[in-house]
Amino acid sequence: MSGSEFKSLSSGVCVCVCVCVVCVCVCVCVCVLQIDEEVAKLLELKAQLGGDDGKHQFVLKTAKGTRDYNPKQMAIREKVFNTIIGCFKRHGAETIDTPVFELKETLTGKYGEDSKLIYDLKDQGGELLSLRYDLTVPFARYLAMNKITNIKRYHIAKVYRRDNPAMTRGRYREFYQCDFDIAGQYDAMIPDAECLKIVHEILSELDLGDFRIKVNDRRILDGMFAVCGVPDEKFRTICSTVDKLDKMAWEDVKKEMVNEKGLSEEAADQIGEYVSMQGGRDLAERLLQDPKMSQSKQACAGLSDIKLLFSYLELFQVTDKVVFDLSLARGLDYYTGIIYEAVLTQAGVAPVSNETQQGAPAEESVSVGSVAGGGRYDGLVGMFDPKGRKVPCVGVSIGIERIFSIMEQKAEASAEKVRTTEVQVMVASAQKNLLEERLKLVTELWNAGIKAEVMYKKNPKLLSQLQHCEESGIPLVAILGEQELKDGVVKLRVVATREEVRSIHTMSQPSLTGRERERERENY
Amino acid sequence: MSGSEFKSLSSGVCVCVCVCVVCVCVCVCVCVLQIDEEVAKLLELKAQLGGDDGKHQFVLKTAKGTRDYNPKQMAIREKVFNTIIGCFKRHGAETIDTPVFELKETLTGKYGEDSKLIYDLKDQGGELLSLRYDLTVPFARYLAMNKITNIKRYHIAKVYRRDNPAMTRGRYREFYQCDFDIAGQYDAMIPDAECLKIVHEILSELDLGDFRIKVNDRRILDGMFAVCGVPDEKFRTICSTVDKLDKMAWEDVKKEMVNEKGLSEEAADQIGEYVSMQGGRDLAERLLQDPKMSQSKQACAGLSDIKLLFSYLELFQVTDKVVFDLSLARGLDYYTGIIYEAVLTQAGVAPVSNETQQGAPAEESVSVGSVAGGGRYDGLVGMFDPKGRKVPCVGVSIGIERIFSIMEQKAEASAEKVRTTEVQVMVASAQKNLLEERLKLVTELWNAGIKAEVMYKKNPKLLSQLQHCEESGIPLVAILGEQELKDGVVKLRVVATREEVRSIHTMSQPSLTGRERERERENY
Repeated sequence: MSGSEFKSLSSGVCVCVCVCVVCVCVCVCVCVLQIDEEVAKLLELKAQLGGDDGKHQFVLKTAKGTRDYNPKQMAIREKVFNTIIGCFKRHGAETIDTPVFELKETLTGKYGEDSKLIYDLKDQGGELLSLRYDLTVPFARYLAMNKITNIKRYHIAKVYRRDNPAMTRGRYREFYQCDFDIAGQYDAMIPDAECLKIVHEILSELDLGDFRIKVNDRRILDGMFAVCGVPDEKFRTICSTVDKLDKMAWEDVKKEMVNEKGLSEEAADQIGEYVSMQGGRDLAERLLQDPKMSQSKQACAGLSDIKLLFSYLELFQVTDKVVFDLSLARGLDYYTGIIYEAVLTQAGVAPVSNETQQGAPAEESVSVGSVAGGGRYDGLVGMFDPKGRKVPCVGVSIGIERIFSIMEQKAEASAEKVRTTEVQVMVASAQKNLLEERLKLVTELWNAGIKAEVMYKKNPKLLSQLQHCEESGIPLVAILGEQELKDGVVKLRVVATREEVRSIHTMSQPSLTGRERERERENY
Repeated sequence: MSGSEFKSLSSGVCVCVCVCVVCVCVCVCVCVLQIDEEVAKLLELKAQLGGDDGKHQFVLKTAKGTRDYNPKQMAIREKVFNTIIGCFKRHGAETIDTPVFELKETLTGKYGEDSKLIYDLKDQGGELLSLRYDLTVPFARYLAMNKITNIKRYHIAKVYRRDNPAMTRGRYREFYQCDFDIAGQYDAMIPDAECLKIVHEILSELDLGDFRIKVNDRRILDGMFAVCGVPDEKFRTICSTVDKLDKMAWEDVKKEMVNEKGLSEEAADQIGEYVSMQGGRDLAERLLQDPKMSQSKQACAGLSDIKLLFSYLELFQVTDKVVFDLSLARGLDYYTGIIYEAVLTQAGVAPVSNETQQGAPAEESVSVGSVAGGGRYDGLVGMFDPKGRKVPCVGVSIGIERIFSIMEQKAEASAEKVRTTEVQVMVASAQKNLLEERLKLVTELWNAGIKAEVMYKKNPKLLSQLQHCEESGIPLVAILGEQELKDGVVKLRVVATREEVRSIHTMSQPSLTGRERERERENY
């Protein structure tokens, strides 16, 4: 009833094929002896087995490359988000949200080589799904699906990449992206300039130290490659080598171009001349006159747009931080025009080494790093539209994880304590058997919209109540005692200075009218 | 070299086992002829093939059971979150976040039968992962991992369940949970009562109509089953039948107990008597005197706690909405004490029928439904602790998706427009060639922290600028014209009333000092 075949292809690789003639199903089992992987698994298994007793012990950890956010980290995260969202809203952005997973085919063919880093869901029947890899592709899918041709939106959400932590140590596999995009057919460079204005505002407001925003244009890069004699089919691969200039010296980049990518030395040298150029509007003007560069229509279109961009950036008052830099070459395939990247230039920021409790890799060194990036991608939405209708888009992504790291580091270095709650007053008592009175008072405070706490004990010690205030930064304590209850007052203590005032407490006299209460307050 | 076995277990099911002796791998292939599923897949495939040309057409949709949130839905979502988070903060809660996926084994054995609804990630090498099913298990894992014994935290995040949309139509597979929990060893019923106070505050503030909070206790249920003669091993299954009382008549519930679960008719009738009881503190007192119920120590412990709970609820001023209801039996295994559930009782809310663009199932009818639930789970953290140390916990989960639906429905029914941006002023011009002036003015507004917009066109029509204001609810337009620029003023128009005022605009005189500017304003 079934046919089964077994082949040993080569040492260590076995293939087993079974065909079932009842339901015509074919079962192929490929077994590759990946020794390294097996060893790693065994070591992990060993770690799971507690001591020598061999008893299975539960591994208490988060998934590799992910982390929990504790309340302190959340307080910092909230602060950063508020600044960023405040800026997005100031610029009139709406917000949308998309599911954490997409149909697998939605993501297919959008990320080039990086596609191998996509997390797939297990096939449990039904659609094949993958976790989102960024927010840009879901945004383009959303626009095409809903036939939206105009929108200015932000989207803050987590994305997922199966980066190998051993290779790119310090990168999380689950991390936030924080995107602002403008979709629509508009006059050139106006929305593009607003994206840079937004980066400028956010980085200034977050007070992360000095920064610089590099700009370039995909068309200038492509034009430059063409006039330097790079064959068409090598544009992308040479571009990804140029992209390494922020981490590697030109000599090494040149070596990679010539030795690995097979570019002629002459072409490489010509590229080398261009990519060392930095400037502003003037540089764009000079290059438009450049005998070689001006031969490329593409490059000229890009250079004219850079000129126009700078004129708008002047009106937006942000040219102090923006540099036209021909070495900027962002990796993603979908960019079609202007590209940009913001980097912190302050040398004072030391590398982060906040190894988390479970030994998860910390965010990589933030000494000098990219904190925002983006560009124009006019073709992406068209990839989703059944009729290929294009929706021009330009956007920026804020590198929030790196910003979190810097802020966390700053918070740790500073003497100021990060508060994780916003409680204004603690309702306490010095004596026993006052739980009822405490609960009554805290209810009154809650009902009045005041952030208040009470200890969940019948008879807590005053000291432990005060300690809780100091630990969590609660500024005020309302202290109830027999005498205060008799007098119809509460003692209000400022935790920091230990100053105390007695204030009228009308709770126990609910029959008093507002005016009576006022009169009583005056009499007091 | 290999052994292969093939068995036809029954018509339509084949099992094929192959063992490879080289690497000792075993390959088991179970092939179930799931005809329905295959047909569904073929139909889907057919949909993917465009017209008759057979060209593969991309399916533009979100994954089954998920949806995008458009800007309007996000505006409502933000409003609801602000209310809920405001309440959590008023009660002194911190917040944490955990990764969207956990190690598969972290979720194993926590959800009973529902485990089959967990989304697994594909094994791409490394750890086996699953998407979180709720926020409670990750919370317990977080506490055990970080050895935290005291915390009051909220967590708002999406969770994932492979519910069959055909069976439970209207439920999303990706949906928000919104949890507040108090962990720590405290005096009985104080944190429990605060959870109910929070539910009361949130539902009142969201103004969803009248509601009722039912409370019961797992120990009362178990005690009741014991004294009614339910065999120990049937507690859980009978409990899950009782859980259906909010959707089924007692007669049908009884039938299920007797016919399906094999309970004696007498036991079922005794249960029937108890589960019809509703009341307050008085009912708890009466049942403590009940000759049968009082025989169960467990039930008595639960009843005493209910009494105590009500005394705190009185102090919290929430007894108007709370009912002690013996028919309440929440499904989850991990509850150990008090349990509760809030339901909307208003008959006025009609079923929702907001089929989304892609035909995804809408939230199920919200006429009368559970909008919050929770309880005490003192054993869960201990399941993660290597030494089994317990951390008592009590918490509540707000059924935010249902609340979104009601709010969306309300927004649609009301004449008031939902604004999706917060823009205060649009910088416009009536004449051509004023882009520069518009960009300068909008920059000034942004720099002053004012939410402002400008159209991304060189020469937009005044009408289209005003239309944009009306559509998106922008209240003010700053109109620039040659005359205004000459006079150093801007015309400020109230969009709703078309009232106009001219106000001094000092932007073009940057050399004026603040005092000079003030003087000029006075002269004007």
